[in-house]
Amino acid sequence: MVVWFDGALVPIEAARVDPTDRGFTLGDGLFETIRASGGAPRRVAEHLARLARGARLLAIPLPYDDDALAAALDATLAANALHDDAVLRLELTRGPGPRGLLPPRPTRPTVLVSASASPPPAPPASIVVARSTCRNERSPLSQIKALGALDGLLARLEAEGRGADDAVLLSTAGRVAEASASNVFARIAGELVTPPLADGALPGVARAAILAAGLAAERSIDADDLLAADEIVLTNSLGVRAVTRIEGRFVGSGREGPATMTLRASLFSG
Amino acid sequence: MVVWFDGALVPIEAARVDPTDRGFTLGDGLFETIRASGGAPRRVAEHLARLARGARLLAIPLPYDDDALAAALDATLAANALHDDAVLRLELTRGPGPRGLLPPRPTRPTVLVSASASPPPAPPASIVVARSTCRNERSPLSQIKALGALDGLLARLEAEGRGADDAVLLSTAGRVAEASASNVFARIAGELVTPPLADGALPGVARAAILAAGLAAERSIDADDLLAADEIVLTNSLGVRAVTRIEGRFVGSGREGPATMTLRASLFSG
Repeated sequence: MVVWFDGALVPIEAARVDPTDRGFTLGDGLFETIRASGGAPRRVAEHLARLARGARLLAIPLPYDDDALAAALDATLAANALHDDAVLRLELTRGPGPRGLLPPRPTRPTVLVSASASPPPAPPASIVVARSTCRNERSPLSQIKALGALDGLLARLEAEGRGADDAVLLSTAGRVAEASASNVFARIAGELVTPPLADGALPGVARAAILAAGLAAERSIDADDLLAADEIVLTNSLGVRAVTRIEGRFVGSGREGPATMTLRASLFSG
Repeated sequence: MVVWFDGALVPIEAARVDPTDRGFTLGDGLFETIRASGGAPRRVAEHLARLARGARLLAIPLPYDDDALAAALDATLAANALHDDAVLRLELTRGPGPRGLLPPRPTRPTVLVSASASPPPAPPASIVVARSTCRNERSPLSQIKALGALDGLLARLEAEGRGADDAVLLSTAGRVAEASASNVFARIAGELVTPPLADGALPGVARAAILAAGLAAERSIDADDLLAADEIVLTNSLGVRAVTRIEGRFVGSGREGPATMTLRASLFSG
Protein backbone atom coordinates (compact mmCIF):
# COMPACT_ATOMS: atom_id res chain seq x y z
CA MET A 1 0.00 0.00 0.00
CA VAL A 2 1.13 3.53 -0.79
CA VAL A 3 0.19 6.30 1.63
CA TRP A 4 0.29 10.06 1.36
CA PHE A 5 2.36 11.12 4.33
CA ASP A 6 3.10 14.77 5.05
CA GLY A 7 3.15 15.76 1.44
CA ALA A 8 4.64 12.75 -0.33
CA LEU A 9 3.47 9.37 -1.59
CA VAL A 10 5.50 6.63 0.09
CA PRO A 11 5.17 2.88 0.54
CA ILE A 12 3.55 2.31 3.92
CA GLU A 13 6.58 0.30 5.04
CA ALA A 14 8.67 3.44 4.56
CA ALA A 15 6.30 5.74 6.47
CA ARG A 16 7.68 6.30 9.95
CA VAL A 17 5.44 7.85 12.56
CA ASP A 18 7.54 9.67 15.13
CA PRO A 19 7.10 7.99 18.55
CA THR A 20 6.56 11.47 20.02
CA ASP A 21 3.71 12.22 17.58
CA ARG A 22 0.79 13.33 19.74
CA GLY A 23 -1.53 11.22 17.64
CA PHE A 24 0.35 8.23 19.03
CA THR A 25 1.03 9.52 22.54
CA LEU A 26 -2.25 11.27 23.29
CA GLY A 27 -4.75 10.40 20.57
CA ASP A 28 -4.46 14.12 19.81
CA GLY A 29 -5.92 14.27 16.34
CA LEU A 30 -8.82 13.75 13.98
CA PHE A 31 -9.78 11.53 11.11
CA GLU A 32 -12.23 11.19 8.26
CA THR A 33 -13.35 8.03 6.51
CA ILE A 34 -14.29 8.80 2.92
CA ARG A 35 -15.91 6.58 0.33
CA ALA A 36 -14.60 6.57 -3.22
CA SER A 37 -16.23 5.13 -6.30
CA GLY A 38 -14.97 5.03 -9.85
CA GLY A 39 -11.63 6.32 -8.63
CA ALA A 40 -13.16 9.51 -7.17
CA PRO A 41 -13.65 10.39 -3.48
CA ARG A 42 -17.25 11.31 -2.63
CA ARG A 43 -18.56 14.25 -0.56
CA VAL A 44 -15.04 15.60 -0.15
CA ALA A 45 -16.13 19.15 0.70
CA GLU A 46 -18.34 17.89 3.54
CA HIS A 47 -15.58 15.70 4.99
CA LEU A 48 -13.00 18.47 4.81
CA ALA A 49 -15.43 20.94 6.39
CA ARG A 50 -15.93 18.59 9.34
CA LEU A 51 -12.18 18.05 9.63
CA ALA A 52 -11.69 21.82 9.69
CA ARG A 53 -14.31 22.23 12.44
CA GLY A 54 -12.55 19.59 14.53
CA ALA A 55 -9.17 21.19 13.93
CA ARG A 56 -10.56 24.54 15.09
CA LEU A 57 -11.98 23.00 18.27
CA LEU A 58 -8.69 21.27 19.10
CA ALA A 59 -6.64 24.27 17.91
CA ILE A 60 -4.62 22.16 15.49
CA PRO A 61 -3.44 24.30 12.56
CA LEU A 62 -4.32 22.62 9.25
CA PRO A 63 -1.06 22.49 7.30
CA TYR A 64 -2.73 22.07 3.87
CA ASP A 65 -5.68 23.79 2.27
CA ASP A 66 -8.72 21.94 0.94
CA ASP A 67 -7.37 21.78 -2.60
CA ALA A 68 -4.14 20.17 -1.44
CA LEU A 69 -6.00 17.68 0.75
CA ALA A 70 -8.40 16.81 -2.07
CA ALA A 71 -5.43 16.29 -4.38
CA ALA A 72 -3.86 14.03 -1.75
CA LEU A 73 -7.02 11.90 -1.69
CA ASP A 74 -6.98 11.59 -5.48
CA ALA A 75 -3.27 10.83 -5.56
CA THR A 76 -3.59 8.11 -2.92
CA LEU A 77 -6.36 6.38 -4.85
CA ALA A 78 -4.36 6.55 -8.09
CA ALA A 79 -1.12 5.35 -6.50
CA ASN A 80 -2.92 2.28 -5.21
CA ALA A 81 -4.74 1.67 -8.51
CA LEU A 82 -8.09 1.83 -6.70
CA HIS A 83 -10.34 2.60 -9.65
CA ASP A 84 -13.50 1.05 -8.21
CA ASP A 85 -15.15 1.31 -4.81
CA ALA A 86 -12.62 2.15 -2.14
CA VAL A 87 -12.24 3.64 1.32
CA LEU A 88 -9.99 6.58 2.06
CA ARG A 89 -8.85 7.48 5.53
CA LEU A 90 -7.48 10.95 6.23
CA GLU A 91 -5.81 11.53 9.58
CA LEU A 92 -4.58 14.79 11.06
CA THR A 93 -2.60 14.85 14.30
CA ARG A 94 -0.92 17.65 16.21
CA GLY A 95 2.44 16.09 15.29
CA PRO A 96 5.53 15.54 17.44
CA GLY A 97 5.88 17.15 20.82
CA PRO A 98 7.49 16.74 24.23
CA ARG A 99 5.81 15.00 27.16
CA GLY A 100 2.81 16.82 28.66
CA LEU A 101 -0.64 17.95 27.71
CA LEU A 102 -0.07 21.50 26.50
CA PRO A 103 0.42 21.71 22.70
CA PRO A 104 3.94 22.28 21.42
CA ARG A 105 4.61 25.65 19.81
CA PRO A 106 5.31 25.84 17.00
CA THR A 107 3.17 22.91 15.90
CA ARG A 108 4.13 20.64 13.00
CA PRO A 109 0.95 18.63 12.38
CA THR A 110 1.03 15.22 10.73
CA VAL A 111 -1.27 14.28 7.84
CA LEU A 112 -1.65 10.69 6.66
CA VAL A 113 -3.93 9.49 3.87
CA SER A 114 -4.38 5.77 3.31
CA ALA A 115 -6.70 3.81 1.05
CA SER A 116 -8.04 0.33 0.76
CA ALA A 117 -10.55 -1.55 -1.35
CA SER A 118 -14.12 -1.35 -0.06
CA PRO A 119 -15.21 -4.12 2.28
CA PRO A 120 -18.13 -6.20 1.01
CA PRO A 121 -21.54 -4.82 2.01
CA ALA A 122 -22.34 -5.76 5.60
CA PRO A 123 -25.31 -8.11 6.10
CA PRO A 124 -28.21 -6.87 8.25
CA ALA A 125 -27.11 -6.28 11.82
CA SER A 126 -28.11 -7.57 15.21
CA ILE A 127 -27.57 -4.83 17.79
CA VAL A 128 -27.82 -4.27 21.53
CA VAL A 129 -28.19 -1.16 23.63
CA ALA A 130 -24.83 -0.59 25.31
CA ARG A 131 -24.79 -0.99 29.09
CA SER A 132 -21.04 -0.67 29.57
CA THR A 133 -20.70 2.98 28.73
CA CYS A 134 -22.46 6.03 27.38
CA ARG A 135 -21.68 8.95 25.13
CA ASN A 136 -20.97 12.34 26.64
CA GLU A 137 -23.23 14.61 24.63
CA ARG A 138 -22.14 17.52 26.84
CA SER A 139 -18.56 17.40 25.57
CA PRO A 140 -17.84 19.15 22.26
CA LEU A 141 -15.74 16.07 21.44
CA SER A 142 -19.03 14.33 20.63
CA GLN A 143 -19.33 16.65 17.63
CA ILE A 144 -15.95 15.93 16.03
CA LYS A 145 -14.24 12.79 14.77
CA ALA A 146 -11.41 12.73 17.27
CA LEU A 147 -9.01 9.84 17.56
CA GLY A 148 -9.51 7.89 20.72
CA ALA A 149 -13.29 7.95 20.92
CA LEU A 150 -13.02 4.72 22.86
CA ASP A 151 -16.58 4.65 24.20
CA GLY A 152 -17.54 3.40 20.74
CA LEU A 153 -14.90 0.70 21.02
CA LEU A 154 -16.14 -0.36 24.46
CA ALA A 155 -19.69 -0.57 23.11
CA ARG A 156 -18.50 -2.61 20.14
CA LEU A 157 -16.61 -5.02 22.41
CA GLU A 158 -19.72 -5.31 24.58
CA ALA A 159 -21.82 -6.11 21.50
CA GLU A 160 -19.39 -8.81 20.49
CA GLY A 161 -19.48 -10.29 23.99
CA ARG A 162 -23.26 -10.35 23.84
CA GLY A 163 -23.33 -12.03 20.44
CA ALA A 164 -24.39 -8.95 18.49
CA ASP A 165 -22.83 -7.03 15.61
CA ASP A 166 -23.02 -3.53 17.01
CA ALA A 167 -24.30 -1.47 19.93
CA VAL A 168 -26.24 1.74 20.24
CA LEU A 169 -24.84 4.19 22.75
CA LEU A 170 -27.12 6.25 24.94
CA SER A 171 -26.28 9.78 26.02
CA THR A 172 -25.71 10.61 29.68
CA ALA A 173 -29.36 11.74 29.68
CA GLY A 174 -30.45 8.28 28.52
CA ARG A 175 -31.31 9.19 24.94
CA VAL A 176 -30.15 7.33 21.86
CA ALA A 177 -26.98 8.98 20.53
CA GLU A 178 -25.47 6.76 17.82
CA ALA A 179 -24.03 3.31 17.16
CA SER A 180 -20.33 2.52 17.60
CA ALA A 181 -19.36 3.98 14.22
CA SER A 182 -22.59 5.07 12.53
CA ASN A 183 -25.66 7.21 12.95
CA VAL A 184 -28.99 5.67 13.85
CA PHE A 185 -32.29 6.13 12.01
CA ALA A 186 -35.56 4.61 13.23
CA ARG A 187 -38.96 4.38 11.59
CA ILE A 188 -41.53 5.10 14.30
CA ALA A 189 -45.24 5.58 13.61
CA GLY A 190 -44.51 5.94 9.93
CA GLU A 191 -41.88 8.63 10.34
CA LEU A 192 -38.13 8.19 9.90
CA VAL A 193 -36.27 9.98 12.70
CA THR A 194 -32.68 10.36 13.85
CA PRO A 195 -31.31 11.78 17.12
CA PRO A 196 -30.34 15.45 17.12
CA LEU A 197 -26.68 16.42 17.59
CA ALA A 198 -27.56 17.67 21.07
CA ASP A 199 -28.17 14.05 22.07
CA GLY A 200 -24.60 13.12 21.18
CA ALA A 201 -24.98 12.08 17.56
CA LEU A 202 -21.84 12.64 15.52
CA PRO A 203 -22.61 15.04 12.64
CA GLY A 204 -22.29 12.31 10.02
CA VAL A 205 -21.83 13.28 6.40
CA ALA A 206 -24.35 10.67 5.24
CA ARG A 207 -26.72 11.75 8.03
CA ALA A 208 -26.56 15.37 6.85
CA ALA A 209 -27.26 14.35 3.26
CA ILE A 210 -30.31 12.36 4.35
CA LEU A 211 -31.65 15.28 6.37
CA ALA A 212 -30.95 17.72 3.54
CA ALA A 213 -32.91 15.46 1.18
CA GLY A 214 -35.89 15.63 3.52
CA LEU A 215 -35.88 11.86 4.05
CA ALA A 216 -35.84 12.00 7.85
CA ALA A 217 -36.44 14.33 10.77
CA GLU A 218 -34.37 15.01 13.88
CA ARG A 219 -36.08 13.91 17.05
CA SER A 220 -34.90 12.62 20.44
CA ILE A 221 -35.62 8.96 21.04
CA ASP A 222 -34.87 6.64 23.93
CA ALA A 223 -34.08 2.95 24.10
CA ASP A 224 -37.77 2.01 24.41
CA ASP A 225 -38.57 3.92 21.23
CA LEU A 226 -35.84 1.99 19.48
CA LEU A 227 -37.07 -1.36 20.82
CA ALA A 228 -40.54 -0.58 19.49
CA ALA A 229 -39.43 0.84 16.11
CA ASP A 230 -40.75 -0.66 12.89
CA GLU A 231 -37.36 -0.32 11.24
CA ILE A 232 -33.83 0.65 12.30
CA VAL A 233 -31.06 1.70 9.92
CA LEU A 234 -27.41 2.49 10.54
CA THR A 235 -25.62 4.90 8.21
CA ASN A 236 -22.11 6.16 7.76
CA SER A 237 -20.04 7.34 4.82
CA LEU A 238 -19.39 3.76 3.75
CA GLY A 239 -22.89 2.38 3.69
CA VAL A 240 -26.42 1.86 4.87
CA ARG A 241 -27.05 -1.16 7.07
CA ALA A 242 -30.38 -2.53 8.16
CA VAL A 243 -30.82 -3.64 11.77
CA THR A 244 -33.02 -6.71 11.90
CA ARG A 245 -32.55 -7.64 15.56
CA ILE A 246 -32.25 -5.55 18.70
CA GLU A 247 -31.66 -7.10 22.10
CA GLY A 248 -32.38 -10.49 20.54
CA ARG A 249 -35.83 -9.53 19.18
CA PHE A 250 -36.81 -8.94 15.59
CA VAL A 251 -37.14 -5.34 14.45
CA GLY A 252 -40.43 -5.08 12.54
CA SER A 253 -40.66 -7.99 10.14
CA GLY A 254 -37.07 -8.99 10.83
CA ARG A 255 -36.06 -8.11 7.29
CA GLU A 256 -34.64 -5.10 5.48
CA GLY A 257 -37.37 -2.50 5.30
CA PRO A 258 -38.31 0.30 2.92
CA ALA A 259 -36.33 3.03 4.69
CA THR A 260 -33.13 1.03 4.27
CA MET A 261 -33.72 0.83 0.55
CA THR A 262 -34.71 4.49 0.26
CA LEU A 263 -31.62 5.69 2.12
CA ARG A 264 -29.32 3.40 0.17
CA ALA A 265 -30.76 4.55 -3.12
CA SER A 266 -30.50 8.19 -2.08
CA LEU A 267 -26.93 8.03 -0.82
CA PHE A 268 -25.30 5.59 -3.18
CA SER A 269 -27.04 6.11 -6.47
CA GLY A 270 -24.22 8.15 -7.95
CA MET B 1 17.12 9.87 23.83
CA VAL B 2 17.00 6.10 24.00
CA VAL B 3 13.58 4.44 24.24
CA TRP B 4 12.54 0.90 25.07
CA PHE B 5 10.43 -0.14 22.14
CA ASP B 6 8.83 -3.57 21.96
CA GLY B 7 11.60 -5.27 23.85
CA ALA B 8 14.71 -3.44 22.77
CA LEU B 9 16.52 -0.21 23.63
CA VAL B 10 16.84 1.94 20.53
CA PRO B 11 17.66 5.58 19.78
CA ILE B 12 14.34 7.39 19.43
CA GLU B 13 15.28 8.41 15.89
CA ALA B 14 15.38 4.70 15.00
CA ALA B 15 12.04 3.84 16.60
CA ARG B 16 9.41 3.62 13.88
CA VAL B 17 5.77 3.53 14.88
CA ASP B 18 3.75 1.68 12.26
CA PRO B 19 1.25 4.10 10.64
CA THR B 20 -1.42 1.44 11.15
CA ASP B 21 -0.72 1.23 14.89
CA ARG B 22 -4.07 1.70 16.58
CA GLY B 23 -2.45 3.97 19.12
CA PHE B 24 -1.86 6.36 16.21
CA THR B 25 -5.04 5.69 14.23
CA LEU B 26 -7.57 5.40 17.06
CA GLY B 27 -5.92 6.47 20.30
CA ASP B 28 -6.47 2.83 21.21
CA GLY B 29 -4.11 2.45 24.12
CA LEU B 30 -3.06 3.43 27.61
CA PHE B 31 -0.21 5.18 29.33
CA GLU B 32 1.39 5.74 32.70
CA THR B 33 3.55 8.64 33.81
CA ILE B 34 5.98 7.49 36.49
CA ARG B 35 8.32 9.52 38.65
CA ALA B 36 11.87 8.32 39.19
CA SER B 37 14.36 9.53 41.75
CA GLY B 38 17.91 8.43 42.35
CA GLY B 39 17.72 6.33 39.21
CA ALA B 40 14.76 4.28 40.49
CA PRO B 41 11.13 4.44 39.35
CA ARG B 42 8.67 5.04 42.20
CA ARG B 43 5.38 3.25 42.98
CA VAL B 44 5.93 0.89 40.07
CA ALA B 45 3.54 -1.77 41.35
CA GLU B 46 0.70 0.75 41.60
CA HIS B 47 1.30 2.09 38.09
CA LEU B 48 1.49 -1.37 36.57
CA ALA B 49 -1.67 -2.45 38.41
CA ARG B 50 -3.56 0.51 36.94
CA LEU B 51 -2.15 -0.24 33.49
CA ALA B 52 -3.34 -3.84 33.83
CA ARG B 53 -6.83 -2.72 34.85
CA GLY B 54 -7.01 -0.47 31.81
CA ALA B 55 -5.76 -3.24 29.54
CA ARG B 56 -8.45 -5.57 30.91
CA LEU B 57 -11.18 -2.99 30.25
CA LEU B 58 -10.01 -2.37 26.69
CA ALA B 59 -9.24 -6.07 26.15
CA ILE B 60 -5.65 -5.37 25.13
CA PRO B 61 -3.45 -8.36 25.99
CA LEU B 62 -0.39 -7.23 27.96
CA PRO B 63 2.60 -8.67 26.08
CA TYR B 64 5.00 -8.43 29.03
CA ASP B 65 4.63 -9.32 32.69
CA ASP B 66 5.23 -6.86 35.52
CA ASP B 67 8.83 -7.95 36.02
CA ALA B 68 9.65 -7.37 32.37
CA LEU B 69 7.95 -3.97 32.37
CA ALA B 70 9.72 -2.94 35.58
CA ALA B 71 13.02 -4.00 34.02
CA ALA B 72 12.18 -1.93 30.95
CA LEU B 73 11.65 1.12 33.15
CA ASP B 74 15.01 0.57 34.88
CA ALA B 75 16.79 -0.03 31.58
CA THR B 76 15.37 3.11 30.01
CA LEU B 77 16.55 5.25 32.93
CA ALA B 78 20.01 3.69 32.81
CA ALA B 79 20.35 4.00 29.02
CA ASN B 80 19.61 7.71 29.29
CA ALA B 81 21.93 8.19 32.28
CA LEU B 82 19.03 9.60 34.30
CA HIS B 83 20.39 9.04 37.79
CA ASP B 84 18.49 11.88 39.47
CA ASP B 85 14.86 12.96 39.31
CA ALA B 86 13.27 11.87 36.06
CA VAL B 87 9.95 11.14 34.42
CA LEU B 88 9.17 7.83 32.77
CA ARG B 89 6.33 7.35 30.34
CA LEU B 90 5.07 3.85 29.58
CA GLU B 91 2.65 3.47 26.68
CA LEU B 92 0.73 0.38 25.63
CA THR B 93 -1.29 0.32 22.40
CA ARG B 94 -3.24 -2.40 20.66
CA GLY B 95 -0.61 -2.38 17.90
CA PRO B 96 -1.05 -2.48 14.12
CA GLY B 97 -4.36 -3.35 12.56
CA PRO B 98 -6.49 -2.79 9.47
CA ARG B 99 -9.05 0.01 9.16
CA GLY B 100 -12.12 -0.30 11.37
CA LEU B 101 -13.05 -0.30 15.01
CA LEU B 102 -13.03 -3.99 15.88
CA PRO B 103 -9.68 -5.16 17.32
CA PRO B 104 -7.43 -7.20 15.05
CA ARG B 105 -6.95 -10.84 15.99
CA PRO B 106 -4.37 -11.87 16.76
CA THR B 107 -3.23 -8.68 18.46
CA ARG B 108 0.41 -7.59 18.55
CA PRO B 109 0.41 -4.76 21.12
CA THR B 110 3.04 -2.05 21.09
CA VAL B 111 4.93 -1.00 24.23
CA LEU B 112 7.03 2.15 24.34
CA VAL B 113 8.96 3.45 27.36
CA SER B 114 10.55 6.87 27.21
CA ALA B 115 12.27 8.98 29.84
CA SER B 116 13.23 12.55 30.38
CA ALA B 117 14.70 14.70 33.11
CA SER B 118 12.15 16.05 35.59
CA PRO B 119 10.72 19.45 34.81
CA PRO B 120 11.39 22.11 37.44
CA PRO B 121 8.73 22.25 40.19
CA ALA B 122 5.69 24.16 38.97
CA PRO B 123 4.92 27.44 40.74
CA PRO B 124 1.52 27.79 42.46
CA ALA B 125 -1.29 27.64 39.96
CA SER B 126 -4.13 29.88 38.91
CA ILE B 127 -7.08 27.76 37.81
CA VAL B 128 -10.55 28.14 36.36
CA VAL B 129 -13.57 25.87 36.33
CA ALA B 130 -13.90 24.54 32.78
CA ARG B 131 -16.97 25.70 30.88
CA SER B 132 -16.03 24.21 27.50
CA THR B 133 -16.46 20.57 28.41
CA CYS B 134 -17.07 18.12 31.21
CA ARG B 135 -15.87 14.70 32.24
CA ASN B 136 -18.06 11.69 31.64
CA GLU B 137 -18.03 9.98 35.02
CA ARG B 138 -20.50 7.41 33.66
CA SER B 139 -17.99 6.01 31.18
CA PRO B 140 -15.50 3.45 32.51
CA LEU B 141 -12.92 5.34 30.47
CA SER B 142 -12.89 7.91 33.29
CA GLN B 143 -11.25 5.25 35.46
CA ILE B 144 -8.33 4.38 33.20
CA LYS B 145 -5.49 6.38 31.66
CA ALA B 146 -6.50 5.98 28.03
CA LEU B 147 -4.79 7.85 25.24
CA GLY B 148 -7.02 10.46 23.73
CA ALA B 149 -8.66 11.78 26.86
CA LEU B 150 -9.07 15.05 25.03
CA ASP B 151 -11.58 16.65 27.40
CA GLY B 152 -8.57 17.36 29.61
CA LEU B 153 -6.83 18.97 26.64
CA LEU B 154 -9.88 21.11 25.84
CA ALA B 155 -10.03 22.25 29.45
CA ARG B 156 -6.33 23.07 29.42
CA LEU B 157 -6.68 25.08 26.21
CA GLU B 158 -9.63 26.90 27.76
CA ALA B 159 -7.55 27.69 30.85
CA GLU B 160 -4.80 29.10 28.67
CA GLY B 161 -7.31 31.22 26.78
CA ARG B 162 -8.62 32.59 30.06
CA GLY B 163 -5.15 33.41 31.37
CA ALA B 164 -4.98 30.56 33.87
CA ASP B 165 -2.60 27.63 34.33
CA ASP B 166 -5.10 24.81 34.57
CA ALA B 167 -8.80 24.02 34.71
CA VAL B 168 -10.94 21.83 36.92
CA LEU B 169 -13.40 19.64 35.04
CA LEU B 170 -16.86 19.03 36.39
CA SER B 171 -18.70 15.75 35.92
CA THR B 172 -21.88 15.57 33.86
CA ALA B 173 -23.69 15.83 37.21
CA GLY B 174 -21.91 19.10 37.96
CA ARG B 175 -19.52 17.82 40.59
CA VAL B 176 -15.80 18.44 40.67
CA ALA B 177 -14.01 15.54 38.95
CA GLU B 178 -10.35 16.46 38.49
CA ALA B 179 -8.01 18.95 36.84
CA SER B 180 -6.69 18.47 33.30
CA ALA B 181 -3.94 16.08 34.41
CA SER B 182 -4.12 15.85 38.19
CA ASN B 183 -6.43 15.06 41.07
CA VAL B 184 -7.93 17.84 43.15
CA PHE B 185 -7.82 18.18 46.93
CA ALA B 186 -9.59 20.95 48.82
CA ARG B 187 -9.44 22.01 52.45
CA ILE B 188 -12.99 22.84 53.50
CA ALA B 189 -14.04 23.55 57.09
CA GLY B 190 -10.74 22.18 58.31
CA GLU B 191 -11.00 18.89 56.45
CA LEU B 192 -9.01 17.87 53.38
CA VAL B 193 -11.30 16.20 50.84
CA THR B 194 -11.02 14.86 47.30
CA PRO B 195 -13.77 13.79 44.87
CA PRO B 196 -14.68 10.09 44.84
CA LEU B 197 -13.99 8.04 41.71
CA ALA B 198 -17.74 7.95 41.06
CA ASP B 199 -17.56 11.68 40.33
CA GLY B 200 -15.09 11.06 37.51
CA ALA B 201 -11.79 11.38 39.35
CA LEU B 202 -9.03 9.34 37.75
CA PRO B 203 -7.72 6.81 40.31
CA GLY B 204 -4.41 8.61 40.70
CA VAL B 205 -1.48 6.79 42.23
CA ALA B 206 -0.56 9.80 44.38
CA ARG B 207 -4.24 10.25 45.30
CA ALA B 208 -4.44 6.64 46.49
CA ALA B 209 -1.29 7.04 48.58
CA ILE B 210 -2.71 10.17 50.24
CA LEU B 211 -5.98 8.40 51.06
CA ALA B 212 -4.15 5.31 52.33
CA ALA B 213 -2.10 7.55 54.63
CA GLY B 214 -5.30 8.96 56.09
CA LEU B 215 -4.43 12.49 55.04
CA ALA B 216 -7.71 13.17 53.22
CA ALA B 217 -11.25 11.87 52.84
CA GLU B 218 -13.32 11.20 49.73
CA ARG B 219 -16.30 13.50 49.42
CA SER B 220 -18.29 14.96 46.54
CA ILE B 221 -17.80 18.70 46.08
CA ASP B 222 -19.16 21.16 43.56
CA ALA B 223 -17.70 24.29 42.01
CA ASP B 224 -19.08 26.51 44.80
CA ASP B 225 -17.35 24.37 47.42
CA LEU B 226 -14.12 24.80 45.51
CA LEU B 227 -14.57 28.56 45.19
CA ALA B 228 -15.05 28.77 48.96
CA ALA B 229 -12.25 26.37 49.92
CA ASP B 230 -9.49 27.51 52.26
CA GLU B 231 -6.89 25.65 50.23
CA ILE B 232 -6.75 23.77 46.93
CA VAL B 233 -4.02 21.35 45.94
CA LEU B 234 -3.40 19.46 42.68
CA THR B 235 -1.56 16.14 42.80
CA ASN B 236 -0.26 13.66 40.29
CA SER B 237 2.65 11.25 40.18
CA LEU B 238 5.05 14.04 39.37
CA GLY B 239 4.24 16.51 42.08
CA VAL B 240 2.04 18.49 44.42
CA ARG B 241 0.99 21.93 43.26
CA ALA B 242 -0.76 24.59 45.28
CA VAL B 243 -3.62 26.52 43.71
CA THR B 244 -3.51 30.11 44.85
CA ARG B 245 -6.12 31.58 42.50
CA ILE B 246 -9.40 30.24 41.20
CA GLU B 247 -11.54 32.18 38.75
CA GLY B 248 -9.29 35.18 39.37
CA ARG B 249 -9.82 35.23 43.16
CA PHE B 250 -7.36 34.26 45.85
CA VAL B 251 -7.76 30.85 47.43
CA GLY B 252 -7.50 31.35 51.20
CA SER B 253 -4.53 33.57 51.93
CA GLY B 254 -3.37 33.37 48.32
CA ARG B 255 -0.27 31.46 49.32
CA GLU B 256 0.77 27.83 49.62
CA GLY B 257 -1.04 26.37 52.61
CA PRO B 258 -0.36 23.65 55.16
CA ALA B 259 -2.08 20.85 53.19
CA THR B 260 0.24 21.44 50.24
CA MET B 261 3.26 21.04 52.48
CA THR B 262 1.83 17.99 54.25
CA LEU B 263 1.03 16.22 50.98
CA ARG B 264 4.38 17.07 49.47
CA ALA B 265 6.23 15.82 52.50
CA SER B 266 4.17 12.65 52.58
CA LEU B 267 4.54 11.80 48.90
CA PHE B 268 8.03 12.95 48.11
CA SER B 269 9.98 12.41 51.28
CA GLY B 270 11.62 9.21 50.02
